[in-house]
Amino acid sequence: MIMNGAESLVATLVREGVDICFANPGTSEMHFLAALDNPKMRSVLCLFEGVATGAADGWYRMRDRPASTLLHLGPGLANGLANIHNARRASSGMVNIIGEHSSAHLKYDPPLKSDIEGLARPLSQWVRRVDSSQSIAWDAASAVAQASGHPGKIATLILPGDASWQDAGEPVVPPSSERKPPPVPDHGRIEAVVQVLKSGEPAMMILGGKATRGPALVAAGRIAAATGCRLATQFFSSRIERGAGRTPLERIPYAVAQAENFLAGIRHIITVETTEPIAFFSYPDKPSLLKKDDTVVHSLIKADEDSAIGLGMLADALGIRNVAPVIQPPIDTAAPTGALTPLSIAQALSAAIPENGIIVDESLTTGRETMSHTMGAKPHDLINNMGGSIGYGTPVATGAALACPDRRVICIVGDGSAMYTIQSLWTQAREGLNITTVIFANNQYAILKAEYANMGAGTPGAQAMAMIDIDRPTIDWLAMAGSMGVPAVRVEDAGALHAEILRCNATPGPSLIEVKLY
Amino acid sequence: MIMNGAESLVATLVREGVDICFANPGTSEMHFLAALDNPKMRSVLCLFEGVATGAADGWYRMRDRPASTLLHLGPGLANGLANIHNARRASSGMVNIIGEHSSAHLKYDPPLKSDIEGLARPLSQWVRRVDSSQSIAWDAASAVAQASGHPGKIATLILPGDASWQDAGEPVVPPSSERKPPPVPDHGRIEAVVQVLKSGEPAMMILGGKATRGPALVAAGRIAAATGCRLATQFFSSRIERGAGRTPLERIPYAVAQAENFLAGIRHIITVETTEPIAFFSYPDKPSLLKKDDTVVHSLIKADEDSAIGLGMLADALGIRNVAPVIQPPIDTAAPTGALTPLSIAQALSAAIPENGIIVDESLTTGRETMSHTMGAKPHDLINNMGGSIGYGTPVATGAALACPDRRVICIVGDGSAMYTIQSLWTQAREGLNITTVIFANNQYAILKAEYANMGAGTPGAQAMAMIDIDRPTIDWLAMAGSMGVPAVRVEDAGALHAEILRCNATPGPSLIEVKLY
Repeated sequence: MIMNGAESLVATLVREGVDICFANPGTSEMHFLAALDNPKMRSVLCLFEGVATGAADGWYRMRDRPASTLLHLGPGLANGLANIHNARRASSGMVNIIGEHSSAHLKYDPPLKSDIEGLARPLSQWVRRVDSSQSIAWDAASAVAQASGHPGKIATLILPGDASWQDAGEPVVPPSSERKPPPVPDHGRIEAVVQVLKSGEPAMMILGGKATRGPALVAAGRIAAATGCRLATQFFSSRIERGAGRTPLERIPYAVAQAENFLAGIRHIITVETTEPIAFFSYPDKPSLLKKDDTVVHSLIKADEDSAIGLGMLADALGIRNVAPVIQPPIDTAAPTGALTPLSIAQALSAAIPENGIIVDESLTTGRETMSHTMGAKPHDLINNMGGSIGYGTPVATGAALACPDRRVICIVGDGSAMYTIQSLWTQAREGLNITTVIFANNQYAILKAEYANMGAGTPGAQAMAMIDIDRPTIDWLAMAGSMGVPAVRVEDAGALHAEILRCNATPGPSLIEVKLY
Repeated sequence: MIMNGAESLVATLVREGVDICFANPGTSEMHFLAALDNPKMRSVLCLFEGVATGAADGWYRMRDRPASTLLHLGPGLANGLANIHNARRASSGMVNIIGEHSSAHLKYDPPLKSDIEGLARPLSQWVRRVDSSQSIAWDAASAVAQASGHPGKIATLILPGDASWQDAGEPVVPPSSERKPPPVPDHGRIEAVVQVLKSGEPAMMILGGKATRGPALVAAGRIAAATGCRLATQFFSSRIERGAGRTPLERIPYAVAQAENFLAGIRHIITVETTEPIAFFSYPDKPSLLKKDDTVVHSLIKADEDSAIGLGMLADALGIRNVAPVIQPPIDTAAPTGALTPLSIAQALSAAIPENGIIVDESLTTGRETMSHTMGAKPHDLINNMGGSIGYGTPVATGAALACPDRRVICIVGDGSAMYTIQSLWTQAREGLNITTVIFANNQYAILKAEYANMGAGTPGAQAMAMIDIDRPTIDWLAMAGSMGVPAVRVEDAGALHAEILRCNATPGPSLIEVKLY
């Protein structure tokens, strides 16, 4: 059978290991849509492009393999860019297929024409425009190779209509040797850190990238046990394996003053797949760098290196391969009762996290300082927003649930944040995903109230305050969820929150819990 | 009083005539937020950036003056780009203020850093990064001058935090002579068209830009009356004044074959603020250009010229200044009864359009071929999507209603389209806007079913069809509207639709009507 370009593209994606496509198609993508009938490709419809790109991010976080997205021309890509930004900052690989007019049509400047390459470049590490249906397999395999490296990359492939519908000929792809294993850190850096750890001076290792889980995390736990080195993460991490039985990681606080205090006594910072801690935003009269001036930063393992191998080498150099790692004991949190406070909310969550649960956290103010209370809960994965663009939570939860159909995903999200990409709920209902969305309904961009003060912008006037409060009208989350087929309940005390999370754990498919904060 | 940069910026915007800001702020914009307390600036909060940019487009369409938007860093801009694309294609002026980290912070590559200029350039005609609080007034006045020209332009100003919070000094702005009036078409082109119109050969004048209303439309009506020249618009227009008492304009059909038939007998196409008609998309085996090969195109008035003056010159050259223009007589459409069909829906709308109503049309399939039935309704304005990026309707309606608080806006929109920027409803409720949103709920991207066939992509398989149907679950539009504070009703026959549009006309504030198509 002779394939057309679109069929060759889908067949190549599948062959290279990309077997899911989060799609929001348009007219120029009809041949690609037809090609999606390939039985090895799963297609998931999203009603807004930011849901598609965020879901691809969530898929990568759990699978360490890229998903594909299908977006409609420049504006479709534009709608997906914010969550592409977040995915890029999380080092999630992703293959975006962007439809384009056929070459012969572009010269007439049709209404939907835009500079797709120009839009793609700022947030993609690799961009290519397909020249012909004959080269499409090569281009698609190259995109997957780029996206699948370590760290993962954003690969964007622009697909003109004529390249879709013309005959593809025999597919030719690059030799798979293009996928190189990540490099190993050099011995000089290892040796320098050995000296630091043996010095007895206060040291903290900051883990990022893929070092917050799996064998790298275990190796870090050994090093901490043997040397007393503290282990920490940035405030946001792409995925942490945590809870009882895992090596615990401290969290550098978000607020500048708290973070400075946290780091004040540290003489040596050792970075693993991350950089030294910096402030999220710039503020008048606050520093960007959070460490003390006399703290020394040692870059042990760079973002593109293999931290499992690197930390293993360090453990060997220290002669501690057989030391037992530091392990978090279980903490049995009693089910809370009474008023909803940041603490009682954290307790309710902690007591209700199921074994192997996946927590997607976009709770900003409500959850920000309280996640430490879940440290001793049942073992689970925690996912954060690495890029800071709001509206990442419900789409990432969608992708994570598709990646791990046997695990419960709990997405904790502020009401303001949830509104950016609320169309996620529809896809969750359509696909019957095991997601519990917990909405913290405080009817304000509460984080901005704090930031207004941090900025030294004085007391907000009436107009400024009106841009921070999102009451008038109050969003009815039960109606919102119900409109898209997701059953929902409202809770007004901590006991009910705990009970409802447990009930949702046991109920297949999506649910939403509105946590009414006042 | 010494102003900081943000205060200087807002004061300059107001002084230059930009007195509304559609805002979705973040931490880096806190000083701008504080400055919005300027009593001459109206601030409107949007829960998603695509609502803000679409509302600015709607404001411009009705006021012919730019609004401003406030967006949070690169991802906030990205979320607004699709409706910036649509606004640009409609030649709507807009001043986007994009927050940015302070210069000193950027070098640390914080999580929200991105190439804002790179993201802005493809869809802005003018981009500038503020260098210092001292030059901010000059930059802001330059942005407004760019946005306010004819045609309107997208001006994007990037505002670093430090430029916001530092002292602005004495504001200095460019001399207002920077705003030049649009040029006038040259006499050679006028004279050539006079010869065409006197030849007696079949001619059609296609009006775009600002020529579809006001004195340009009246002049075109005179020319049609005196010469028999047909008057038409592209399938989409930025704003048409139409209905009883206005000069009627034919509409070039959307589908390629129909458009070719429509233009088949035309010997001369005369373009005014637009170009010759082209197909919206490219299809295998269908042409891009819609006219016959032997049709001659005369570019009478270019997009940056003044069509009111130009068509007046043409009328003078024809010696017909005092000829009465062609005028559309009123057509009293009886209120329809019975089943909801494209025709009965058009009749219900036609019979219910209030005097001076504003119709924002994003109805795609349901409304596409039936808007001609509203030609003889009460005089009204009709607004279309010029850029083809879905999700323009409810935001543009929001901006149009703010621009014209004494007029009823009726936004007719497909269910698939409405979901992209559904957060508009919340702003409509918050501001108490006189908008009736009519949702055509057919539970599918019906346009894509037609386009699938047009593309010759064969019969959709199960997977492809699943990407076109948006049932499973069906969206409950009453719950959706209610969740954001907009009262809603559902109608299942044409009589009820007519009655409900009339009821909403008489009810202040927003309403939603779900038109249940099956």
